[in-house]
Parts: sequence; structure tokens; C-alpha cells
Amino acid sequence: MKEYLFKTEMEVRDYECDIQGIVNNANYLHYLEATRHKFIQSLGLSFKKLHDDGMDVVVSEIEIKYRTALTGDDKFLSCLNYHRDGIRLVFEQDIYRLSDMKLCVKAKTSTVAVINGVLSKGDEMEELLKCS
Amino acid sequence: MKEYLFKTEMEVRDYECDIQGIVNNANYLHYLEATRHKFIQSLGLSFKKLHDDGMDVVVSEIEIKYRTALTGDDKFLSCLNYHRDGIRLVFEQDIYRLSDMKLCVKAKTSTVAVINGVLSKGDEMEELLKCS
Amino acid sequence: MKEYLFKTEMEVRDYECDIQGIVNNANYLHYLEATRHKFIQSLGLSFKKLHDDGMDVVVSEIEIKYRTALTGDDKFLSCLNYHRDGIRLVFEQDIYRLSDMKLCVKAKTSTVAVINGVLSKGDEMEELLKCS
Amino acid sequence: MKEYLFKTEMEVRDYECDIQGIVNNANYLHYLEATRHKFIQSLGLSFKKLHDDGMDVVVSEIEIKYRTALTGDDKFLSCLNYHRDGIRLVFEQDIYRLSDMKLCVKAKTSTVAVINGVLSKGDEMEELLKCS
Repeated sequence: MKEYLFKTEMEVRDYECDIQGIVNNANYLHYLEATRHKFIQSLGLSFKKLHDDGMDVVVSEIEIKYRTALTGDDKFLSCLNYHRDGIRLVFEQDIYRLSDMKLCVKAKTSTVAVINGVLSKGDEMEELLKCS
Repeated sequence: MKEYLFKTEMEVRDYECDIQGIVNNANYLHYLEATRHKFIQSLGLSFKKLHDDGMDVVVSEIEIKYRTALTGDDKFLSCLNYHRDGIRLVFEQDIYRLSDMKLCVKAKTSTVAVINGVLSKGDEMEELLKCS
Repeated sequence: MKEYLFKTEMEVRDYECDIQGIVNNANYLHYLEATRHKFIQSLGLSFKKLHDDGMDVVVSEIEIKYRTALTGDDKFLSCLNYHRDGIRLVFEQDIYRLSDMKLCVKAKTSTVAVINGVLSKGDEMEELLKCS
Repeated sequence: MKEYLFKTEMEVRDYECDIQGIVNNANYLHYLEATRHKFIQSLGLSFKKLHDDGMDVVVSEIEIKYRTALTGDDKFLSCLNYHRDGIRLVFEQDIYRLSDMKLCVKAKTSTVAVINGVLSKGDEMEELLKCS
């Protein structure tokens, strides 16, 4: 497996599966977001506190490839790396099914920060992550 | 059919169905909430504006009976009445499947208002609904 | 704290909070369901396998009282007991905020089993839970 | 505005907004899916019936750019075109806020069909859409 900066174990909740018996495509975006927020928490920060302090990190773009479908009872490992790209912080996020470590989802999530209503050049976000 | 103060037509989105092929029990609470908010909108008010103005209407209790399951492609009629009960506004909410008008869900939703962080005695909410 | 047959620790995902900054009322039903399914798993059973074997456990009624609102970053303890009531298995489910053990939600969830499309008298479900 | 094969009007439900007061990024995938399913319905087909008949259309890849955030009370126009690309049907999907027709989301959704468990070469899906 690739090297990752952050990994967290999660599991499918049955209501996240749809009529086809597999996790609905939108719910992976929830998993990816929860992973980024847990990464931020692991640095002693909090998405909610950032919001209360006037900094909203918003998603500007997502590219997501679905490889192996997760289903009820599945546990998975959600992993991320990130790099700076202009005003954006870009998260490379992969999800693996724990039982056999098959790649389920490969995503690239671009985020920008809006600070008191103004689009940031990206320095504040990068510094927050680095200094933590 | 009973008399209702407010009725609105909605339809199931497929992702709201779960692995059993029927709408997941939690999603009916989303339907009930969307109905109350549409009722408020029909009076020229808005849940979002109320929140921005410092009044949060929160649910304090729900009793919900599930009778006939909705599934993908179903359209339904979501209906409500309400009455004042002490500090609470209580909404009686029924959902009917449109194709045969079978009762799907029968619910009683109790709400209270929190105004600038303080629990209201209920007068403001009742007046808002009456004066509109 | 009361005695419970089963307890599990969970945490709020930020997207479960709504515009008011607190967990949306419908999401507690997701927490309650996830807790019942984890209880079933703790007995070596699985909601998904039961479904594949022709037994669907469906919710027939919920009474839920909201006491203390959960918000982003909160962890909570979700607890349950159950008893048989005619054709129904009734789960008494309480959710406590972990930081101060305040009661957040108190719910009574009635479920019935549908076996190959026929409403069960309730014996199969009770036996499954007992024998496990 | 561009020409589209299919357009449908939808509206934000308040619970789809998160703590930032705007529609959560994952919910746009729900809007996009609901739009594709409504498109299929407009042809006299149904996602649920296709599933019951053994054909599951699954999403293999999504690229989504977020431009203008939708919020509570917003109505929007969800539009699509599609083209065949090898085994895939690719939907170009744009969402506009109705009040000012600002572009909210620009997405490319690639789907493949799995027929009785086997990955299709894509002909069946294309023919279904054409013949309808």
C-alpha cells in the first residue's frame, strides 16, 4: 500500500446502502469529508471551531473513481495525503475495504478557504495544517 | 380523507430507499420536516430567515407510526394540522401514497422555539403562524 | 446510569448537523438503527444476511424525545434494552453525550419481522436474539 | 444557456444544508442522481424496474466543480446531456440557481451497466435510452 499522512478506520452503516444493496455513490463524499475532518481533529483543530472563528473550508472540486463497491457490514480504511496547489489545498483520498484491502474509491478533493466571507489565497489553511 | 390545514405533494428519491428496497425509516422525518418548512413558507415565512433572526424552532418529541412502506417511484401527499399545547406547537402529520391514497405514516411532531438561546413560552411561534 | 443490555460508542459526523449547527432530528433515527444493527452483529447475526435469507425486520413505530442536542465533534454512547410485546420486539434506546453523560435522546422503537413477505408473529425474531 | 436534452426543477430541503448554512457537497450527488432517474422516467423507464429486471446502472466516475453554493429556500434547474464513451454512458450535468440562473455545479458522471452481475459493453443501456 501507498504511504499516507493520515489513515482512519470506518464502517458502513446499513442505511447508507441503497436499493442495489451497495453504498450509494453520494455517501462516499460523506466518508471523504468525515476523513478530512478527523485529520483536522488529529492536529488539534476542528471544522466547527474554524467555522465559528470565521474560516469556512469549502470543497471546490472533486474527482472520484469508484472501483469496488462497499456494502452492509463492510469496514474500510480511509486514507489521505494533501498538497498545496495555488489557492487550493488538494487532498488525495483513497478508501480500501479492510477485509481484503481492495481499493474501493480513489478521489482528489480540492478545497479553498473563505475567511470572513473573502476567498483566501490559501496561506492560512496551509499554515494551520503545518503548525499544528 | 381528513381535513388538513396544509397539503403538499412530494416524491421518493431512489437514494432514500435502503437495502430492503423501501424508504428508510429516518427519511420520513426528513419528509415531515420538509413539509413543516413548506407550510411555513406558504405563510410567507422561512425557517432559514427565522434562524438568521435568532429564532430556532426545534423538535422536542416525535411519535411516528409506519403503516404502508413507500418505495422508489412513489409519489405521496404530505398533510398537516397543528395545535398549541403549553410551550409547544404540535403538528399532526399524515403521509398518503398518491397512487391509492393509502396511509403510509401517521406522526405527531412537538416543537418548541428557542429565541436568542432562551426557551420560548410558545406565544411568538403561535402568533407568527396566525398573523401570517 | 441505568443498566443496558448493549452499549456502543459513536461520534457525530459534521454533515449530520444542519443549519442550526446541531444534529438534525432525523439523523438520530440513523444512530438508533445503527445501534440495533451493531447489537445484532454482536450476537453473530447481520441485518444484511437476514434480508438475504428472506427476513426483513421493519420499524413499525418510534417514540423519540429530544433532550440535549448533539453537535459537531460530540461523541456519544448509544444504549439499548429490548422486550417482546405481542408480535413486536420493542427496543428502549437512550443516547448520552460522552463528555458529561447528559441524556440526549430517549426512544422506544417497535419492530416487526416480515418473513418471505408475511408478517411474523414475532417468535422467530425473539428466538434469534435469544439463541445467539 | 446551453442546450440540454433534459431539464428538471428541484428545490433545496433545509436538512441538506450543513453547519456552514449551505448545501453539503455530497447532497449535489443526490441531486445529480435524482435528475438522471427523472430523465430515465421521462422515457418511460425506471431505475427500480431496471434493478428488478437484473440491470444495475452504477456510477464509475464523477468529476464535479462547485461554483455557487445553494442554500435553504433555493430552487434550482438541473440539466443533462449524455454521450456514449466505450462501455460508459457519460452524463454532462449542470445545476443552475433559478433566481438568477447562476451556475452552481458542473459535473460529468460516468456510468456503466451491470447485467445479471456481468459488466455490460454498454450497448443495452444506449439502446434503452434511444428506443424509449
